[in-house]
Amino acid sequence: MTHTIKELAEALGAQALGALSLEINGVAEPADAGPQDLALAMSPKYAEGLAKGGARAAMLWEGADWQALGLDAAIIPARPRYAMAGLTAAMDKGHGYGSGIHPTAIIAPGAEIGIGVSVGPYAVIQDGAVIGANCVIGPQAYIGPDSHLGEDSLLHVGVRIGPRVRIGARFIAHPGATIGMDGFSFVTPEVNAVDQARASLGEEVDAEAQSWVRISSLGAVAIAEDVEIGCNTCIDAGTIRPTRIGERTKIDNLCHIAHNVVVGNDCLFAAMVGIAGSTTIGNNVIFGGQVGVTDNTTVGDRVVGGGAAVILSKVPEGRVVLGYPAVKMDTHVDMYKSLRRLPRMMEEFAAMKAELKALKGD
Amino acid sequence: MTHTIKELAEALGAQALGALSLEINGVAEPADAGPQDLALAMSPKYAEGLAKGGARAAMLWEGADWQALGLDAAIIPARPRYAMAGLTAAMDKGHGYGSGIHPTAIIAPGAEIGIGVSVGPYAVIQDGAVIGANCVIGPQAYIGPDSHLGEDSLLHVGVRIGPRVRIGARFIAHPGATIGMDGFSFVTPEVNAVDQARASLGEEVDAEAQSWVRISSLGAVAIAEDVEIGCNTCIDAGTIRPTRIGERTKIDNLCHIAHNVVVGNDCLFAAMVGIAGSTTIGNNVIFGGQVGVTDNTTVGDRVVGGGAAVILSKVPEGRVVLGYPAVKMDTHVDMYKSLRRLPRMMEEFAAMKAELKALKGD
Amino acid sequence: MTHTIKELAEALGAQALGALSLEINGVAEPADAGPQDLALAMSPKYAEGLAKGGARAAMLWEGADWQALGLDAAIIPARPRYAMAGLTAAMDKGHGYGSGIHPTAIIAPGAEIGIGVSVGPYAVIQDGAVIGANCVIGPQAYIGPDSHLGEDSLLHVGVRIGPRVRIGARFIAHPGATIGMDGFSFVTPEVNAVDQARASLGEEVDAEAQSWVRISSLGAVAIAEDVEIGCNTCIDAGTIRPTRIGERTKIDNLCHIAHNVVVGNDCLFAAMVGIAGSTTIGNNVIFGGQVGVTDNTTVGDRVVGGGAAVILSKVPEGRVVLGYPAVKMDTHVDMYKSLRRLPRMMEEFAAMKAELKALKGD
Repeated sequence: MTHTIKELAEALGAQALGALSLEINGVAEPADAGPQDLALAMSPKYAEGLAKGGARAAMLWEGADWQALGLDAAIIPARPRYAMAGLTAAMDKGHGYGSGIHPTAIIAPGAEIGIGVSVGPYAVIQDGAVIGANCVIGPQAYIGPDSHLGEDSLLHVGVRIGPRVRIGARFIAHPGATIGMDGFSFVTPEVNAVDQARASLGEEVDAEAQSWVRISSLGAVAIAEDVEIGCNTCIDAGTIRPTRIGERTKIDNLCHIAHNVVVGNDCLFAAMVGIAGSTTIGNNVIFGGQVGVTDNTTVGDRVVGGGAAVILSKVPEGRVVLGYPAVKMDTHVDMYKSLRRLPRMMEEFAAMKAELKALKGD
Repeated sequence: MTHTIKELAEALGAQALGALSLEINGVAEPADAGPQDLALAMSPKYAEGLAKGGARAAMLWEGADWQALGLDAAIIPARPRYAMAGLTAAMDKGHGYGSGIHPTAIIAPGAEIGIGVSVGPYAVIQDGAVIGANCVIGPQAYIGPDSHLGEDSLLHVGVRIGPRVRIGARFIAHPGATIGMDGFSFVTPEVNAVDQARASLGEEVDAEAQSWVRISSLGAVAIAEDVEIGCNTCIDAGTIRPTRIGERTKIDNLCHIAHNVVVGNDCLFAAMVGIAGSTTIGNNVIFGGQVGVTDNTTVGDRVVGGGAAVILSKVPEGRVVLGYPAVKMDTHVDMYKSLRRLPRMMEEFAAMKAELKALKGD
Repeated sequence: MTHTIKELAEALGAQALGALSLEINGVAEPADAGPQDLALAMSPKYAEGLAKGGARAAMLWEGADWQALGLDAAIIPARPRYAMAGLTAAMDKGHGYGSGIHPTAIIAPGAEIGIGVSVGPYAVIQDGAVIGANCVIGPQAYIGPDSHLGEDSLLHVGVRIGPRVRIGARFIAHPGATIGMDGFSFVTPEVNAVDQARASLGEEVDAEAQSWVRISSLGAVAIAEDVEIGCNTCIDAGTIRPTRIGERTKIDNLCHIAHNVVVGNDCLFAAMVGIAGSTTIGNNVIFGGQVGVTDNTTVGDRVVGGGAAVILSKVPEGRVVLGYPAVKMDTHVDMYKSLRRLPRMMEEFAAMKAELKALKGD
């Protein structure tokens, strides 16, 4: 993890200044930085922190005077936040899963393991699984029968892949993620309370009590290339066709993607997002934490759902929505401002009623 | 997984037409179907898809003319959605956990394992556990001491059952589910901020800061027959008496059932539902995704809670509720419609105030 | 687990009455209690239950007449709910993980294991890990490289600790919890829809579609002493500095603590709470179930967030908040009461408009 200032700046496409051969082996906030750390001070507000810490080099804001800041070297990137991606990747020590097939890994004879694959202790890979070259299968992970995993993928410790799943290259799944398990699909012999409540929007349900019968999930999951899935997130198998996740989509921890859902490309879902069954999400959709989307609906491309928005109906492309139920953000703001003023307005309204009565009474 | 049209139709109690001995080994959407698939076309809108695909047989809507659709055989069920249950069960290839006790499974000498039980690699079963006949214990699963699992149950990979849990027959738990772990119950030496906020509904809390002391969970969990629990769902142990789940209740992924909760029979909870401690849920209750229910309350039989409803007080039986806080659905709709119109009404109200002032001023 | 009445009362700092040497080996609700159980009847409403059950001893309310209740012995605590902590701890049979290092546990040669540590079957401990004295590492647990765990800690079955995590003494983590995994931090080469939506609060986003580039997590997690973490809860690693959890804080099941979050001391988060990235939570903060907090904000000391509150901006210390967006509880109650009356007020308003028009028309 040791790099010179010159190497780092070149890797980031950034400007390098001062002692280009200075060696860096860590990254730190300015006040915490030691002499071998690159301090992160991408805005003038961090100048004071630099003086407190012991950094000899820093990543600085455009136009910063690195010498006046007492540094020996500096890196100045064009878009600082974007430079963080390259810098942290260069400095990442990783999870230390090691290489090779651990002797305790159980790999079925009919599984195909590509070259350069590592499999951790107590991992289990079932018959018919196909693991692409250079994949890292973490300790205690599980890959079900006939599932395919694209090359250069990383399954962290304890990830579970169900049967017949198809996953593209460079996939990352974090601990406890479950992919391709049975969808939650049940039916009653006769029309039931949910059907009835949906049909009537009524306040009372008088449907006869019935038991639930399971619909099995035959459709598995299909995940495109460059997807990342967070800890303990669940992506359920489709009923007949696969549940789908598009290219380069990133999903955070504790999310739920139900059976038959189709998620587009380049989406970003923060933690605890839930998408109910058979809903379709477009490309480049961004959801804040705890967003929920009802079943059998459509969310257009480039929609942004603010934190905890509850989407109960179709959303056209490009819209920013918020609230429960989710509406356009400016509509939400107008409604909410009015609601804040409502208690006082109710008082004024009562006074006005009295005045009007007095006027009429004359 | 190969069945004739005749066999399938009989299993589904459906009408079979045409080449009854035609063999089917898969199920597909009409446009994707090959010659050995049964195409699913249970409404006239799928007729076009049938023409595009290669199916020789289909499950059709009542009154469909299978010959005009170019098919060799057809199955016509009475309630198509219900027929999906039988059809997908017949075609389900399952999870491939295999049979027998895997040599790496660790089973304590004092555990009782019924006949026909299979236990996957790296599963651990503790002392005093009793596993009913024909159970399938998936790879890397865990069963705590003195827990009982009814016959024909299926624990998927990585399910964790705590100590002293009682579970009925035909139970299904999906990967990462945890059942019978310690409840979240803490107490302070003196009255604390939560007690005070509840008592006063006040805006400020001035309770002295205190530390939390743990109340242990002695009560375990009791689950009746035919229950199904989703991936990464948690059902915590009760404090003194067990947390209870009634017969035939189905709970989806990432749900939380807190200590001392009692859930009735035939309930259906979609993903991410959370029920706080000591709350009682009746029979045949249906909750959409992300529904929350506060602690120490009661939800009556046949209640339907719409997606993301937050239930903060008792709900009488048969009611359909929505919103935060959850109210009767028609009340919610009225409130919401009014709120949508409120910004405009506020403008009209300001104008009216001015008019009234002018009238009075005369 | 057998204790005399005298021992129990002394341990609880409570008053003991009657047959002080009576032996107790369980705790039960009054109606369910057998002759060796201590019945829990800390309020007069349980008197009837005592008569139905078979208890010879009970924990009673202050002033109760134990002899009139037909008991041989009684314990009378000062604060009954607080006494539950000591009583249930004394009676807890635990999870039965056993002692010693199980032969199937894989411990890297460079890991340091303190005295009295037990490690369960199929657990994996990586190089450079340091496990304090008397820790219990449950079956199938995982501890990443260079992570430190304080003495007397308990990791339940299947807990996953990532690399370079620092955890204080007496830590408890429940099954499926993941600590120190990569944060969800992505950036686009150019300004994107989220940046734009935040800057404009606008309804439409026209940002060019872009792909997401990963920012790696170098900062790990730092957890102070006496912390408890629930089942399947996720605490992500910080980007540069650690994500922090303060002393004695307790977090329930299925919670999400994002990268760079700082949580203070003595907090209590119920299940399904989500805290977005880089937010700071003070000391003694209490969150009900499903509370969400947006990123990059601050929640003051002693704040109470009611169930499902969505905190979208800074909250001053000591405030009780509720709603989406979360506001002071009394403001929320006022707004909500007004909203309930709004549909009727809209009707009255329409009538008033007509009257005023008539008045003016004269």
